[in-house]
Amino acid sequence: MVRADELATHSAWDDGILRAYLTPEQTRVNAIASAWLREAGMRAWPDQAANVCGRRLVDDDDRPALLLGSHLDTVPGAGRYDGILGVLVALEVADRLRDADLPFALEVVAFGDEEGTRFGATLLGSRALAGGWKEAWLDLVDGDGVTLRDAATTFGLVPEQIGAAARPAGSLVGYLECHIEQGPRLEARDRALGVVTAIAAAERRMISYRGEARHCATPWDLRHDALLGASAAILAIERIARDQGSPATVGRIRVEPDAVNVIPGFAEFSLDLRDATAAGRDATWGLIRHELQHIAVDRGLDLEVVSTHVAPEAPCAPNLREAVAAGIRATGDDAPLELLSIAGHDAMAVADATEIGMLFVRCAGGISHHADESVLVDDVAAAIVAFEAAVLHLAAEYRRS
Amino acid sequence: MVRADELATHSAWDDGILRAYLTPEQTRVNAIASAWLREAGMRAWPDQAANVCGRRLVDDDDRPALLLGSHLDTVPGAGRYDGILGVLVALEVADRLRDADLPFALEVVAFGDEEGTRFGATLLGSRALAGGWKEAWLDLVDGDGVTLRDAATTFGLVPEQIGAAARPAGSLVGYLECHIEQGPRLEARDRALGVVTAIAAAERRMISYRGEARHCATPWDLRHDALLGASAAILAIERIARDQGSPATVGRIRVEPDAVNVIPGFAEFSLDLRDATAAGRDATWGLIRHELQHIAVDRGLDLEVVSTHVAPEAPCAPNLREAVAAGIRATGDDAPLELLSIAGHDAMAVADATEIGMLFVRCAGGISHHADESVLVDDVAAAIVAFEAAVLHLAAEYRRS
Repeated sequence: MVRADELATHSAWDDGILRAYLTPEQTRVNAIASAWLREAGMRAWPDQAANVCGRRLVDDDDRPALLLGSHLDTVPGAGRYDGILGVLVALEVADRLRDADLPFALEVVAFGDEEGTRFGATLLGSRALAGGWKEAWLDLVDGDGVTLRDAATTFGLVPEQIGAAARPAGSLVGYLECHIEQGPRLEARDRALGVVTAIAAAERRMISYRGEARHCATPWDLRHDALLGASAAILAIERIARDQGSPATVGRIRVEPDAVNVIPGFAEFSLDLRDATAAGRDATWGLIRHELQHIAVDRGLDLEVVSTHVAPEAPCAPNLREAVAAGIRATGDDAPLELLSIAGHDAMAVADATEIGMLFVRCAGGISHHADESVLVDDVAAAIVAFEAAVLHLAAEYRRS
Repeated sequence: MVRADELATHSAWDDGILRAYLTPEQTRVNAIASAWLREAGMRAWPDQAANVCGRRLVDDDDRPALLLGSHLDTVPGAGRYDGILGVLVALEVADRLRDADLPFALEVVAFGDEEGTRFGATLLGSRALAGGWKEAWLDLVDGDGVTLRDAATTFGLVPEQIGAAARPAGSLVGYLECHIEQGPRLEARDRALGVVTAIAAAERRMISYRGEARHCATPWDLRHDALLGASAAILAIERIARDQGSPATVGRIRVEPDAVNVIPGFAEFSLDLRDATAAGRDATWGLIRHELQHIAVDRGLDLEVVSTHVAPEAPCAPNLREAVAAGIRATGDDAPLELLSIAGHDAMAVADATEIGMLFVRCAGGISHHADESVLVDDVAAAIVAFEAAVLHLAAEYRRS
């Protein structure tokens, strides 16, 4: 908890945390995380994508590793546990197991970008480690017009080398991530911990309506108000997605020309749509799309939709699920609760490189991506016990097989 | 038309015109307008508020003046006639009457701020001339954080002297303004010109909902989404204002934290509400306010409303209305159409100092505040004839009285 408080002081904002990829704030927390990795008995190094990595000093061979980790970057106005708690739990477990005889190497990773706050595309750190880095991302631009290429250079990376952060095939035996739930289900069922069954499928889109920017004296019948279209669309998305049980969020909106006495000629908003499966997500989108088109026709607007991020559901591997469940049982919870993760996580990206498993920790009121994010000390203690037990359960399974 | 094209080249934007108060673009068009005033046989000077003024050389006494004019500033992405045409018609009429024997002096003014594009508050130039300048406006801030005080100093004004642009009591006999209609009524009735009866009452407000910024994995029942509240409010405003016959526009919107995967905890939007009378405007607002409050309760949001601009209806003086009608009759239209101006104009501000009259010119499709704004050459020629005839009609009336 003290470490989470310390990391929280490294923020681009005074009011709520903002710590984005390739910023001075990341430089500072990466240095701190490296020091903690060394204190935990690990060799620490920054990889080519600005993720901080650690491997136990006793693992001085090239055995494949079990990787534990999460991310240190945040959304704007964040709390202090989303991602961060998972890194700190991994560090603590690595420290406890610094001399343990394990049938695999043990590594920890603190990813530099999961949220995608700065460059729009998410999971940049974990996708680089998993071999999914795309050269085209170097041309992504932040809100100040800085390219990822220039930001990487300023940070001290070699832009063309970021893809080399990819772990070689066969170098990992699996990935375990501990994370706050970011939902209220554990709290509602009075549980400290839960086993993640899968990470929901997601798709993000930018949706825009183009009408006509006209003076506010324009009669109603002659208006083609893009913001009225967007408002109708945002309400329709709520209605349809809620009916279908697909979590949906419109988090961003902007209009042009954005003047108090001009009818908006253009309105653009984001849609983040999720579902237990890609098929369910796409079925909900089909209904939404139909309604958006109907609104466009009704109001004389042009509709444009651009998909910016697609992820299928990422199932957790049966043996890693069982290891996490065994870990939770070690805390005295005999029937661990199974949960679908609606939120995305680094594990989604790492799933391209190795099998994944996840442990959820209860957070107060399910609040996340907000300064009020909080966890109970006892729950964190239980998470450390469970995460360590999960690693040892997996080690025992490895020795048997 | 050539002059309107020339002024259109002085813009902060390449794509659509943007010419705001106290900018380098204003410096350039003010210099051009001064030169044109001198060519029209007038003494030209910039006043303390950066309005450009002209008085006929033959009026070298201190007789009270009939003032003709409009504004040279624009909204973002503007066309080339809103305000500008009125200045150019006034210039042309002054030129035609440079040696005419009139019972009053003749002056022209090109106001520096009507739209309020840069500092939010509108009619800054015309309110300064009419004696309504407020010292507090020096602390208004533009989008880049520059105060009006600093912008005025950079422009070459003395901030504390802006209020001295006020014309002395008794120095004006009236104000006539020619302006494009910014609506489709003249076009629909196949008329080039119209007489304005009054300028509608208006009020502008910033309306905000505060909910809770939460992760997009938050279940529907726990969400307090400020943007969903704003969307419902914007649609309710359309429905109510339309029913009541009160033009209403939501031109600006922004959300916080404005992240693709965070439920907006805050949404703020503008409302520009107009009506033929202040009483009608306030009755419509009462219905809207009730609905906004209902949405707040329904969605667990806090509602806040701040009024940023209030203007009662501004009636045109009977004798100036008759002068404008006589002017239109001089163009061959025996029964001039009478129109309420829904758009605000400098005349609203000048009404505090002297009586006002307005001539409307047809514009294509009623389109304004948009690059497609256009007028017919024949209509502009008719407007010049009518505006000159209106001045002469008023002169004859003065001689009789």
